[in-house]
Amino acid sequence: MAKQKNLPFCIYFYKSGTLLTSTLLEIYRFTQEAYMATDLVLILDNIRSNYNVGAIFRTADAFRVQEIVCAGYTPTPETEGLKKTALGAEITVPWRAESLEASIKRLRADGYQIVALEIGGEDIAKFKTPEKIALILGNEVEGVNPEILKSVDHRLEIPMRGKKESLNVSVACGIALFALQSGRL
Amino acid sequence: MAKQKNLPFCIYFYKSGTLLTSTLLEIYRFTQEAYMATDLVLILDNIRSNYNVGAIFRTADAFRVQEIVCAGYTPTPETEGLKKTALGAEITVPWRAESLEASIKRLRADGYQIVALEIGGEDIAKFKTPEKIALILGNEVEGVNPEILKSVDHRLEIPMRGKKESLNVSVACGIALFALQSGRL
Repeated sequence: MAKQKNLPFCIYFYKSGTLLTSTLLEIYRFTQEAYMATDLVLILDNIRSNYNVGAIFRTADAFRVQEIVCAGYTPTPETEGLKKTALGAEITVPWRAESLEASIKRLRADGYQIVALEIGGEDIAKFKTPEKIALILGNEVEGVNPEILKSVDHRLEIPMRGKKESLNVSVACGIALFALQSGRL
Repeated sequence: MAKQKNLPFCIYFYKSGTLLTSTLLEIYRFTQEAYMATDLVLILDNIRSNYNVGAIFRTADAFRVQEIVCAGYTPTPETEGLKKTALGAEITVPWRAESLEASIKRLRADGYQIVALEIGGEDIAKFKTPEKIALILGNEVEGVNPEILKSVDHRLEIPMRGKKESLNVSVACGIALFALQSGRL
């Protein structure tokens, strides 16, 4: 008799259990999509230092960068020294090794605006971030290749108000990602 | 005759030359004052790495930080390894070695709001930057001392949207200075 009494409840629980599971799956998918939804790709061209690339992977994770392209001689997460500074972010952020030219061509065809972070550009704080954007960061000393600079959609700069003329590339990357995220809201 | 003809022009040029010089001097003084006008002090507490402190000096120069306090075991610009990453910014940014407690006491007495950059605080992007502000950055692994956290006016955080929970301290410093500068405008 107790069994019979409990039966409807069992069915009820079974049904709501199924509902709960599908809702949880929905939430999971939604958060997974939200994680990937920024449509911001970072292109690292000829960045020399493992230390900088590792720090950039950590920052890219925090800002939900969609993918990092390691172009030129930029070390990839397969480099041993990089894992030490990326602290696991090399696993959470998708990446690929690809030439700068090929990545620009591929991303442009996919509707991405190509922008470069370089001195002498538009103020990044005032830039309205497009839906799909690929940000190029260049070598620690040489910056972004001048030939590439001519072909980008925008050249953006972090306003420098001091007496020196450059920031560490991983610091510049963090500021740029923060500014581009703010420029989207 | 040519001389007489030109005389009035000479006087004119002499006068405008004087005017120009004094105007240039005014502009020079104004920019010098503007350079010092941010009233933002950085307190680095127990930051271990020369590499990070050097990068922070470069960033501090770019954002016209008024002074850097090297507290605890944070290396000062007298450390040889620091000069390599600061790239001259250790000369352009004023600094002092002082204990964390003494610097907080001194700056608070001088009207500075004391804020700490730490996970679990208010969103720095929404923070309205006060006129005089001292920003504490803590150790790479331990963060800001919990005892000090209790006594600060504000605890600020950079929103982390990824799967990891931390940024490199020099990257976090760059983002914080950019955000605080934007919050002032």
